[in-house]
Amino acid sequence: MRASTYPLIDAGEAAALVLELTPVLGVERVALADASGRVLAQDLVGEAPLPPFPSSAVDGFAVRTEDAGRALRILGESAAGRPFEGRVVAGTAVRILTGGVVPEGADVVVMVEDVTVTGDQVTVPAQLREGSNLHKVGSDLRPGDLILSAGTQLGPAEIGIAAATGRARLPVHRRPRIALMSTGDELVEVGTSAGPGQIPDSNRWALLAALREAGADVDLLGIAPDEAEPLRRFVTGALATADAMVTSGGVSVGTHDLVKPLLESLGTVHVGRVKLKPGKPFTFATLEAGKVAFGLPGFPVSSLVTFEVFVRPALRKMQGFAQLQRPTLPVRLGYEAKPTAERTEYQRVTLHREDGELVAETTGSQSSSRLMSLAGAHALVRVPAGEVGIAKGTVVEAMILSLP
Amino acid sequence: MRASTYPLIDAGEAAALVLELTPVLGVERVALADASGRVLAQDLVGEAPLPPFPSSAVDGFAVRTEDAGRALRILGESAAGRPFEGRVVAGTAVRILTGGVVPEGADVVVMVEDVTVTGDQVTVPAQLREGSNLHKVGSDLRPGDLILSAGTQLGPAEIGIAAATGRARLPVHRRPRIALMSTGDELVEVGTSAGPGQIPDSNRWALLAALREAGADVDLLGIAPDEAEPLRRFVTGALATADAMVTSGGVSVGTHDLVKPLLESLGTVHVGRVKLKPGKPFTFATLEAGKVAFGLPGFPVSSLVTFEVFVRPALRKMQGFAQLQRPTLPVRLGYEAKPTAERTEYQRVTLHREDGELVAETTGSQSSSRLMSLAGAHALVRVPAGEVGIAKGTVVEAMILSLP
Repeated sequence: MRASTYPLIDAGEAAALVLELTPVLGVERVALADASGRVLAQDLVGEAPLPPFPSSAVDGFAVRTEDAGRALRILGESAAGRPFEGRVVAGTAVRILTGGVVPEGADVVVMVEDVTVTGDQVTVPAQLREGSNLHKVGSDLRPGDLILSAGTQLGPAEIGIAAATGRARLPVHRRPRIALMSTGDELVEVGTSAGPGQIPDSNRWALLAALREAGADVDLLGIAPDEAEPLRRFVTGALATADAMVTSGGVSVGTHDLVKPLLESLGTVHVGRVKLKPGKPFTFATLEAGKVAFGLPGFPVSSLVTFEVFVRPALRKMQGFAQLQRPTLPVRLGYEAKPTAERTEYQRVTLHREDGELVAETTGSQSSSRLMSLAGAHALVRVPAGEVGIAKGTVVEAMILSLP
Repeated sequence: MRASTYPLIDAGEAAALVLELTPVLGVERVALADASGRVLAQDLVGEAPLPPFPSSAVDGFAVRTEDAGRALRILGESAAGRPFEGRVVAGTAVRILTGGVVPEGADVVVMVEDVTVTGDQVTVPAQLREGSNLHKVGSDLRPGDLILSAGTQLGPAEIGIAAATGRARLPVHRRPRIALMSTGDELVEVGTSAGPGQIPDSNRWALLAALREAGADVDLLGIAPDEAEPLRRFVTGALATADAMVTSGGVSVGTHDLVKPLLESLGTVHVGRVKLKPGKPFTFATLEAGKVAFGLPGFPVSSLVTFEVFVRPALRKMQGFAQLQRPTLPVRLGYEAKPTAERTEYQRVTLHREDGELVAETTGSQSSSRLMSLAGAHALVRVPAGEVGIAKGTVVEAMILSLP
C-alpha cells in the first residue's frame, strides 16, 4: 500500500479534459415513434408552407367580406379532408368545418354561433373582418424557416412539428451504449444475505437509473471479478460492443484496486485523482477506437456526484446536445456552506420558496456514504476549495436537479 | 350543424373535475432495474442500520487514539469484504482499505499519507481524533428512519438507497396503459402524400412522446375510422386492455365529429367544452370499470396544451405521484400578455436570465395550429379571462416545462 502517484487535478480542469476527450457519436435516422428524447443531428428547415392550404379555425361559413350583413345562398360544404370543389362568388356561402379548406373566393369564416340559417340561406353579421377565423397558407411556417436547430432535444412539440412537415424519420445522434459494472470484494447482490464486512451492491442500480435518465443504453454487467486477469477478460469483452465503460469502486489506492492498472494497460489514464469532494478517486481514460472509461468511486454519494460532474455532460456531448450542463438558478443559502481546504465540494441541498426566492437548505450530513444526502435533493451547490466558505444568506448559482 | 349544447366550464373547475374522477392505479412490485421513474406506493422505513458495520472511509491504519504518536506493530489487514479477524490492542495497528471493517478495539483510522511504515511497524501522528476517517454503525441510517415517502418518484439516489437497504424489488403504482388514436378525415399518415385538404397526422406522434414522458405505456392505435360503427368497434377493442383512452380531433361540433356521441354512449361525458384557449373543445368522460377518456382538440397546440392542463396531472394521479402539477417559478413578463374575453389562456413563453431574474418572452403568434409557439417553449403563462391582461414587467407564477 502506498499513496497514489496520480496528480490531484482541479475539478474544473478535469471536467474540461473529460469533455474534450469524449467524442460525439454518429448519426442515425429514427422513426417518429422512437424520436422522443433524442437529439437532432441537423437543422430542420421548412420546405412547404404550413398550413399548406387556407384552413378554417372554427365551424361556420366561408364567405366574402363584401357580403357582410346579407343573406347568402349556401352552395355546399367543406369539411376537414373533404374540400368544396367550387368557388364562393358574390351572394354565396359555403358551410365549413374546423380544419376544412377555405374555398377560393372566400376571405373570412363566420362562426356558426354568429349566423342565422334559414333553409338554404345563411345571414351573416354586418361587420366582417378579412382573415378572421381562418389560418392563411404559410401563417405557421414558411419555406426556408428554421424549424429546429441541430442539438435540440426532441420533445412532444418538436416531434409534432417534424411530423406536421412530413418527416416520418429524423436524423439524430446515436445513444451511447455503456457497459456498467461494479467492483469490490465486499459487494453481494442486493437481496442475497451479506456476510461479515459485506454490503449489497447498490451503486450499479443507482448508476443504471442515472445512465438511462441521461440517454444511455446500458449493458448491465454485474459485479466484476476481483482478480486481474479475469477482470481484464471481462472488461475487454464488454468493450467490444460498448462506446464507453462505467465502473464503480476499485479506484482508490488499496492493494486490491484493480481498475486503474487495467485502464492503464488498455489505454491512457488522463485523470486519476481530482480535487473534488466527494469523488477524489475519480478516474477517466481514453481507450482504443474512440472509447472512453469512467472509473467512479465506490462510495454511493461519490459515485453519483462524479456521475453528475463528469459523466452526464460527457454522455450529452456523445449525443450531440447543444447544452451539456444542468441548468442553474440563483438560490439563497439557508445554511452556512463550510468549505473543504483543497477540494471543490458539491453540497446537496433541497430548495423551497420564501418571498418569491429559492432558498437552499442542506440535506444534512454530507458523508460520501450517506445516500440520504442525495435522495430528494433538488440541487448541488458548488463550494470552492479554501478556508472561506459561503455565508448563510448569500445568493449562489446552483445546479438544478429538479424543482420543488 | 348546430352550436354545441355542452356547457362551457371554467378551466380550473374542469381540471379539478378531471382529477377528482381519475382513479389511482394499483400496486405492483418491480425489480430495481425497472424502478427508474416509477412512484413508490408505500413508505420505505429503515430496518437495519447503515452502514451495518464500522467501515473505513480511506486507505490507512486502524488504531487506538490512546496510541497517538507511537510506533505500532502491524497485526494484519482489513480489506473491503475481507475483515481482520482479531482485535486492535494497545501498541498495535491493522492496515485497512477503503470500505474495510474497522476492527474491534480501534477507534480511529489514520490515512496512509499521514504515517511512516518501517518493516512491520507503523508510526502514527501525535494528534488523533476519535472517529476520524471512519463511518460508524448507523451513521447513515438507523432502524425506524423514514427513508422515502409513498408518492416519491424513484431516481438514481432513491433507487440506490433502496438497494443499499437490501430491497431487490419495490412496491410502485402501475403505469397507466393508454390507448392513443387520432381522428379526422383530413389526416394521412406522416410520410405518405397528402391530397387536397389533407394533412399529416402529427398529433399522434406529439402525444405519444408526451404520454411516455408522463410515465404512460402507450398502445399506438393509428387513425380511427370516420364512421360511427367502425369507430365504436375500434374504441371498445382498444379499451379492453387500456386504463384510459386519448384521442385527438373529432370533438368540435361539426357533423363529422363522432367522438363526443360515442363517449356519451359508452359512459358519462363530464366536460364537453372548456373556457380555455387554446383547447375549448376538450372533452372528458368516465367509462365503465374506472376507465377514463380524454378527447383532445385536433389543432396541434390545443392538443398539447390540454394535455398539459388536464391529462398530465391525471396520469400522475394514476401513478400515485405526491405532486401532480408542474413546478412553478416566478418570472417577469418581457411582453404584454393580452387576455381573451371569456377564456383562460395558456401562453407559451421562452425564458432567459436578466439580472438574476427569469424573464419570459412570447414565442410569437399563439395560433392554435402553430406548433412553433410550443417548440422550445420553457413555460406556460396562465392569463385569466377578462379585459385586463397582464402588463409587461409584471412578475407571474409560470408553469415550468424546462429550464433555459
